[in-house]
Amino acid sequence: MPQKISENKIIQLLQKRYPSRSPLLKKGIGDDAAVIRPHGSNEYWAITTDMLLEEVDFRFERTTPRQLGHKSIAVNLSDLAAMGVQPRFYTVSLAMPQDINEHWIQDFYAGLTACGSAHGAILIGGDLSSSHNGIMISITALGESLNRKVLYRSGGRPGDLLYVTGTLGCSAAGLKLLQAGNLRPRSQAQRAALHVHRTPEPRCAAGQWLAQSNSIHCMMDISDGLSIDLSRMCAAGRIDAEIRLADIPIFPESHLWNCNPLDLALHGGEDYELLFAVPKAKKKLLEQNYPSDFPQITEIGSLIEGRGKIWISEPGKKRKQHPVRGFDHFRQEMQS
Amino acid sequence: MPQKISENKIIQLLQKRYPSRSPLLKKGIGDDAAVIRPHGSNEYWAITTDMLLEEVDFRFERTTPRQLGHKSIAVNLSDLAAMGVQPRFYTVSLAMPQDINEHWIQDFYAGLTACGSAHGAILIGGDLSSSHNGIMISITALGESLNRKVLYRSGGRPGDLLYVTGTLGCSAAGLKLLQAGNLRPRSQAQRAALHVHRTPEPRCAAGQWLAQSNSIHCMMDISDGLSIDLSRMCAAGRIDAEIRLADIPIFPESHLWNCNPLDLALHGGEDYELLFAVPKAKKKLLEQNYPSDFPQITEIGSLIEGRGKIWISEPGKKRKQHPVRGFDHFRQEMQS
Repeated sequence: MPQKISENKIIQLLQKRYPSRSPLLKKGIGDDAAVIRPHGSNEYWAITTDMLLEEVDFRFERTTPRQLGHKSIAVNLSDLAAMGVQPRFYTVSLAMPQDINEHWIQDFYAGLTACGSAHGAILIGGDLSSSHNGIMISITALGESLNRKVLYRSGGRPGDLLYVTGTLGCSAAGLKLLQAGNLRPRSQAQRAALHVHRTPEPRCAAGQWLAQSNSIHCMMDISDGLSIDLSRMCAAGRIDAEIRLADIPIFPESHLWNCNPLDLALHGGEDYELLFAVPKAKKKLLEQNYPSDFPQITEIGSLIEGRGKIWISEPGKKRKQHPVRGFDHFRQEMQS
Repeated sequence: MPQKISENKIIQLLQKRYPSRSPLLKKGIGDDAAVIRPHGSNEYWAITTDMLLEEVDFRFERTTPRQLGHKSIAVNLSDLAAMGVQPRFYTVSLAMPQDINEHWIQDFYAGLTACGSAHGAILIGGDLSSSHNGIMISITALGESLNRKVLYRSGGRPGDLLYVTGTLGCSAAGLKLLQAGNLRPRSQAQRAALHVHRTPEPRCAAGQWLAQSNSIHCMMDISDGLSIDLSRMCAAGRIDAEIRLADIPIFPESHLWNCNPLDLALHGGEDYELLFAVPKAKKKLLEQNYPSDFPQITEIGSLIEGRGKIWISEPGKKRKQHPVRGFDHFRQEMQS
């Protein structure tokens, strides 16, 4: 009988079996990006890989090639944002049907390089292949630390305050529209949701600012949903988290198309916002100095003693443990 | 009407449109690997990406997961070998059906990491996804130069002698066996051909030695066939090449299973041997000093004035221009 295993389990297995020891390697498998320090280099380099597959991550008919190019690099740059490093270079593997239109290819690369350039990253190579089974994109992006500051998932301490950038659940609300066949927005809110879903903006500038602020203990991006990603942060830091549902920056307008905004914020995925922990003593300084033209930051809870659990608090209710849900490629699409 | 374009054309288009200017970038799109020099670093870093797709590059039933893991990293390390650099790190994108067996995954990574380790490279991360359409693997490998020596495709000069490592056409002869349904070897020659096809050995040590020898003008690996790869070297160096058919190190035994050994050596692909150009004055020194326990090297012709053509010479015949054939993903599988 084939045995169905989870993505987390495969990664844990790889981490354990291939502990990645090298004097040049600062961080191996298991964070948003690996981190190396080349011989003699003044800075660290972060390396991340993410892929997008047709029928799994996107539908051909629901996106333009330009949007798809943008999203492909954006999800990788988001991992570099989460480390607080400056994107520099990337390579692209692209497999596509043999009869694909030349304009499609040009538009895909136009979207890709426009988003890359906007965040300082340059296309330096890749691989091209024909495919019998739709489009596959795998990108590897490299970023350089600034003043040797790199942030990891681990490093959070009890008492730290948990923050997120931006709004959560907006991308998932856009996906719900697409899944219902609403490819064109009928309102400002729908426009926003579709825009965020199709062309998420990686939080590179915010991530770098936070890394330079010396006020962050740990950081990661929210790609699979706050719930599952926070549980990864807790596992990496061997710590518990408590979140206040009422404080999560939801996208309330999705209610208008029958979504549950809180549910999407917790479990929706593809937000590509940043999640980070700040020692209490730095709260005031952070909130005062954080640039007002950056995506808003919102305090949603705190880290507490523990070994990887998430607790939910709601006004007037008893604190309860939160079951982890989110996107795992090797379980059902949205676990429950 | 969809317009069918060639892989070379897409790459040329990308090279032209995205010229990749950065003070940290020494070589962008178009060589076996991109080359960067991190701020302050003593050495250059080469970055390469290659993918393998089920039904395009391999058949599930014709290889073991361990062999597939080996080959996936080997084709990437071969690109680093071609630059003469020392492999250090790699990331792996792996998409696979949801019901895949856990042992399959473990064996795949075992093959991958065994080959990586043998050449000094460490797995540092990647991405995992479920797939509705078979297995897809994309690997990005990073290598570090030794004493700042990096070799490129370009740089060959008229009069340089052309060499290749190893034997050409052996892998293609193995593929012919598999295509004919002969999954198990019936002779020593068949064993060798299947072995080379399923688990090619990247020429990392030879590549590094050659780069350190200070006697090489240009180098690349032969992945798509001597014919098409040599034409790429000629295009990159704006030079012609003349090869002597009688001197090509073919795999004559493939004749026993109805192959044309010379045809496979010229157009077969997946040899993962090195092709390099040596100034005449260094020939003797190179041949004397080249380690005897490395794959043999064979002089097959020379570079001559020109702008990218290949000429064929045979004893007693007039020199003639060689039509370029080889594997191009966006033309028929073997062009003619």
